[in-house]
Amino acid sequence: MADFFTIAWIDNGGIVRMLDQRLLPHETVYNDYTSAAEVAAAIRDMVIRGAPAIGAAAAYGLAAAAVHSRATDPSTLRSELVAAGQTLKAARPTAVNLAWAVDNMLSVLSFPLLDTVESIQAAAVVHANHIAAEDVQINRQLGLNALDLVPQDATIIHHCNTGSLATVDYGTALGVIRTAHEHGRNVFVLVDETRPRLQGARLTAWELQQQEIPFQVIADGASGYYMRVKGVDLCVVGADRVAANGDTANKIGTYNLAVVAHENGVPFYVAAPTSTVDLQTLTGDDIEIEERPSSEVTHIGEMEITPAGAPAGNPAFDVTPARYITAIITEKGVAYPPFTESLARLKHS
Amino acid sequence: MADFFTIAWIDNGGIVRMLDQRLLPHETVYNDYTSAAEVAAAIRDMVIRGAPAIGAAAAYGLAAAAVHSRATDPSTLRSELVAAGQTLKAARPTAVNLAWAVDNMLSVLSFPLLDTVESIQAAAVVHANHIAAEDVQINRQLGLNALDLVPQDATIIHHCNTGSLATVDYGTALGVIRTAHEHGRNVFVLVDETRPRLQGARLTAWELQQQEIPFQVIADGASGYYMRVKGVDLCVVGADRVAANGDTANKIGTYNLAVVAHENGVPFYVAAPTSTVDLQTLTGDDIEIEERPSSEVTHIGEMEITPAGAPAGNPAFDVTPARYITAIITEKGVAYPPFTESLARLKHS
Repeated sequence: MADFFTIAWIDNGGIVRMLDQRLLPHETVYNDYTSAAEVAAAIRDMVIRGAPAIGAAAAYGLAAAAVHSRATDPSTLRSELVAAGQTLKAARPTAVNLAWAVDNMLSVLSFPLLDTVESIQAAAVVHANHIAAEDVQINRQLGLNALDLVPQDATIIHHCNTGSLATVDYGTALGVIRTAHEHGRNVFVLVDETRPRLQGARLTAWELQQQEIPFQVIADGASGYYMRVKGVDLCVVGADRVAANGDTANKIGTYNLAVVAHENGVPFYVAAPTSTVDLQTLTGDDIEIEERPSSEVTHIGEMEITPAGAPAGNPAFDVTPARYITAIITEKGVAYPPFTESLARLKHS
Repeated sequence: MADFFTIAWIDNGGIVRMLDQRLLPHETVYNDYTSAAEVAAAIRDMVIRGAPAIGAAAAYGLAAAAVHSRATDPSTLRSELVAAGQTLKAARPTAVNLAWAVDNMLSVLSFPLLDTVESIQAAAVVHANHIAAEDVQINRQLGLNALDLVPQDATIIHHCNTGSLATVDYGTALGVIRTAHEHGRNVFVLVDETRPRLQGARLTAWELQQQEIPFQVIADGASGYYMRVKGVDLCVVGADRVAANGDTANKIGTYNLAVVAHENGVPFYVAAPTSTVDLQTLTGDDIEIEERPSSEVTHIGEMEITPAGAPAGNPAFDVTPARYITAIITEKGVAYPPFTESLARLKHS
């Protein structure tokens, strides 16, 4: 395991501690939070990002809200937690894991057997820890399920960051690569730098370096060149939401990568826990795409790269239609087209 | 006309003066050069870039070599100029305009009627000025030839920089946009930022701002999102070399953009002077792709964005196969598929 952690619950003080990913790879700083509002702000400002990680963060945000509540009766506490859940859900709109974790926590904490403030507080911490621990197990299983899809010598394009930093630990798409590496596959990763926030250049490169997995960072626009000229065996990416028909919302740039992979006959895999599959979302057209501040495009850190006053567009995600996706790898197995059937089967298994 | 110039010859002192494009958009600094070796270094280091602009720079580099030569007889001077031409050609391998301009200069300067050192020196300056002036005329004609391809309301994706800065003046693909704007079309430009060197974010945004043409900078990976969700009417890009069959080498990222445009039914145009069409290069497979220093990917300015020691790949160009190209716009007319016939016809017209 890596010698850092993405998110942890500190019992002593009821603290949610997160690695501030905005400062990576040059600084390793941990921030402490003790309220749902603080955690929501950390999610919105991308101290923590990645669909599974922000799911766990939301669960811990509710745990912090419970532990630090001054409510003296269960019903007041439950009302506070519902309000805290709304704040957390509103932090970012696209990833379904955030809403899933909030709803899952609130559902557990509504059990009538929890009939004192203290029992709800204890259950909130226990269940948030459970959601976090489960994420790690899910990722490990997901990686094992993908093993047959990775050839012995594999050049792999990966977009954004889906490693330990995007999850509680281990990773989804990067977990697939890590498992293959640990099982003796000769993997070489072409790391899409992933503009505008450079999650690939900053975070994925940092994780691969620590795990001693060979890689090379490339500009997002170079992926097609590598497929056509150098040879690429597969692409694997994570997901912020998978619709019932397999349409997948993921970091901006994923759709371009998928289309170019399709055109070059390169298998294109999505790796995501089944909690990211949202059967209530019928197609990708129903997924809200977050528009983030234009300063993320016009500035890199403090440095302005465009001329002063230049307008910029900054959609944070795009939707890749299911027809470009070879398979969707989950902890419950690998779903192949037609996804409407295979995803429903996995989701209910 | 814009209140800057990309390159100019200063008779007084025999100076090639260039706007240092590495410092844009925040600083406007002009550098002076008086030898072919200095001009070659400026081309290699990308003080000046863009296929037509580096063609003009090479012509002026030979003019400087001629003017500052200490040769006392025509044959010694001609030998020096052949050597200087080799130095200039070696500066960057992909754009054909560089070699074309050197060969064109040497061919003119080999006329037997030029039988004194002074007459060769004078002819070098006159012919370099002619090459530069012709580039501006060519770009204006190219823009007019494209007018029928731009609808009255046109959202246009443009990659890299192909404006006044990439040429002696006016621009190729950006010239197409500028002409349409000047003729009353409502153009809106989605400016691919063009990693790694950000020619779109730094240079194209700067030019469009000066020309008061509405635009928005976007990450390269977002182009497909805009095509699929927002609607894009056409893409137009420049070229560093067009092969006889229409395969086109251009800035890295062009191939991805073309594939995604094709998939979305968005017309994809290449705008280039016929001097960029190289009938000696049969297909794109015969075009050498320059690999530039990895520091252009790992650093933005002085800022390191990847973890220390992270390896990066940096192909400067890619090849877009002809089947993704709707038409190639030149100063002699618009070539449509099959390009092998249409380009040969234009080239010889």
